[in-house]
Amino acid sequence: MRKGNTIFFDKNPCIASYAAVCGSKEKEGIIGGYADVTLKDDMYGESTYEKAERKMLSSAVQMAVAKGNFTEGDIDLMASGDLLNQIISASFSARQFRFPFLGVYSACSTMSESMLVAAMAVDSGYSTAAVAATGSHFASAERQYRYPLELGCTRPPQSQWTVTGAGACVISKKGNIKIKNATIGKVCDWGVTDVNNMGAAMAPAACSTLIQHFKDTDTSSEDYDIIITGDLGALGSRILKDLMWEKGYDISENHVDCGEIIYKVIEDEFQGGSGAGCSAVVMNSYIFTKMSAGLYKNVLFAATGALLSTVSSGQGESIPCISHAVELEGI
Amino acid sequence: MRKGNTIFFDKNPCIASYAAVCGSKEKEGIIGGYADVTLKDDMYGESTYEKAERKMLSSAVQMAVAKGNFTEGDIDLMASGDLLNQIISASFSARQFRFPFLGVYSACSTMSESMLVAAMAVDSGYSTAAVAATGSHFASAERQYRYPLELGCTRPPQSQWTVTGAGACVISKKGNIKIKNATIGKVCDWGVTDVNNMGAAMAPAACSTLIQHFKDTDTSSEDYDIIITGDLGALGSRILKDLMWEKGYDISENHVDCGEIIYKVIEDEFQGGSGAGCSAVVMNSYIFTKMSAGLYKNVLFAATGALLSTVSSGQGESIPCISHAVELEGI
Repeated sequence: MRKGNTIFFDKNPCIASYAAVCGSKEKEGIIGGYADVTLKDDMYGESTYEKAERKMLSSAVQMAVAKGNFTEGDIDLMASGDLLNQIISASFSARQFRFPFLGVYSACSTMSESMLVAAMAVDSGYSTAAVAATGSHFASAERQYRYPLELGCTRPPQSQWTVTGAGACVISKKGNIKIKNATIGKVCDWGVTDVNNMGAAMAPAACSTLIQHFKDTDTSSEDYDIIITGDLGALGSRILKDLMWEKGYDISENHVDCGEIIYKVIEDEFQGGSGAGCSAVVMNSYIFTKMSAGLYKNVLFAATGALLSTVSSGQGESIPCISHAVELEGI
Repeated sequence: MRKGNTIFFDKNPCIASYAAVCGSKEKEGIIGGYADVTLKDDMYGESTYEKAERKMLSSAVQMAVAKGNFTEGDIDLMASGDLLNQIISASFSARQFRFPFLGVYSACSTMSESMLVAAMAVDSGYSTAAVAATGSHFASAERQYRYPLELGCTRPPQSQWTVTGAGACVISKKGNIKIKNATIGKVCDWGVTDVNNMGAAMAPAACSTLIQHFKDTDTSSEDYDIIITGDLGALGSRILKDLMWEKGYDISENHVDCGEIIYKVIEDEFQGGSGAGCSAVVMNSYIFTKMSAGLYKNVLFAATGALLSTVSSGQGESIPCISHAVELEGI
């Protein structure tokens, strides 16, 4: 069923299992004790950053499948994408597993988009067990979007740090976390052109999707134990709270941003984490574990993505952003 | 319903309307008389190739919406992607229309993937009118994937020419072309590393999906008036026919490849057209018009995509490919 921009699932698609891999810096923070694999060396035994990123994604998928007592043959859909050009991490992982594969892309909102697509397929009976997954790697993102690491460029204080990590979940009809509905995002662009200030660019997209979700589902912020955004970082998170407040919603008590909470020590990462892997690892380790333990019951997850490229920014464009939301219920 | 890798639509999703824009070279060929807009100048009044590509995509979407007597407010989903890094053509088009947007990517198979996702959403009642769209531009693809045009590099005889064009269709419950089912592709990689020989790389993916489709739907090649692949080109198309023959299927009589038929004069384009826009313009002009006129009834459309990036090729990887198929019926 559809209402507004929200699709309601009535056939009970659930998170059957989940897994996460994170890097050495991420291990020091909140998810260190929850991720299934934490890397000592972010190269993960590979010869390039891109191959390390792909291996993390594949590992997360493989573990999520195994933890749910699925065989690889049980999985009949993989919905995945990532930040690298032509989403090579996802495509090459799909090559490894030979799952029927739908490539998706919404930058750092890819975790919620892939969950949305997988839940749609399971709810409609088009899939019995679908994997949703994404990841990112600090070093591959830096060299693709910014500067070669070897240059040692300084970073401005409004910047964030791309998370090294990957997360995956299997969505099927059985599990103790139900996917109740999902709100499809619209592209928002408030004219921000500073590619180092993704939080400011993405906050309006999160605001738009959260308000749309509240209207479509006839809920408000207090109906959720926790409202989780993807990777707005500390600054973006504050902007979101302000924007929501202006629209009459107070999320100050129960809003958490994955980018803001992922790192323990604020050092080079300034505003916190970002990247498709940011919300992927936080959700697929810390949050789903807490939900499974009954600590959170009603959870709204709205990952946020900045849909720019180096070419669009180079051609003077501002940064279009999107946020897809998924409502979860611990059962 | 699902069988094998094929999802069956029982709620009658249809192509309600369609539109295509093509470039000046494409205008000379088979689609020249069918495309809604044919460009005199491939810059389309824009200052960069990328902006011209985006404008073609937006124009195709706008025309498809208008031709179906929809307003922009009627469209509650846009599933789209393209070849440019971070699918900026699709994302920036979605920004313009403010449609709820799911970014998808499967390279030159994006037309069938976007139709598959849109049909899933319409069939399940998650959407009432969904746009599926993609496009490409010769010049933006050349500079991103190959060499700057200004270098005037020669091209090897096995190469293809990226189509300048875009196509879009609106999928809803009414229309005279029914989407019966769709087969989700698996990633195939037979070890081809020659980035100038996409036809050879992609043919096995088309073969795999066609055979899977025949098995799942209990049909064979003779059940279709026409079996259309995306952009294998002349060489890839011959390879596909051979591969199918070896597996016991004769598609020599009713197989057509969009890349092979799109250009009138074989000149620089050698093996024919390629690019996400190739099958997008051929389907959304020539084929759907013939179907609407009752000239083709049973049509199997299997676009093909090469999931490489310049980075993956530079790191010595072979070319993973995919093909998503959509079965159409003129009613």
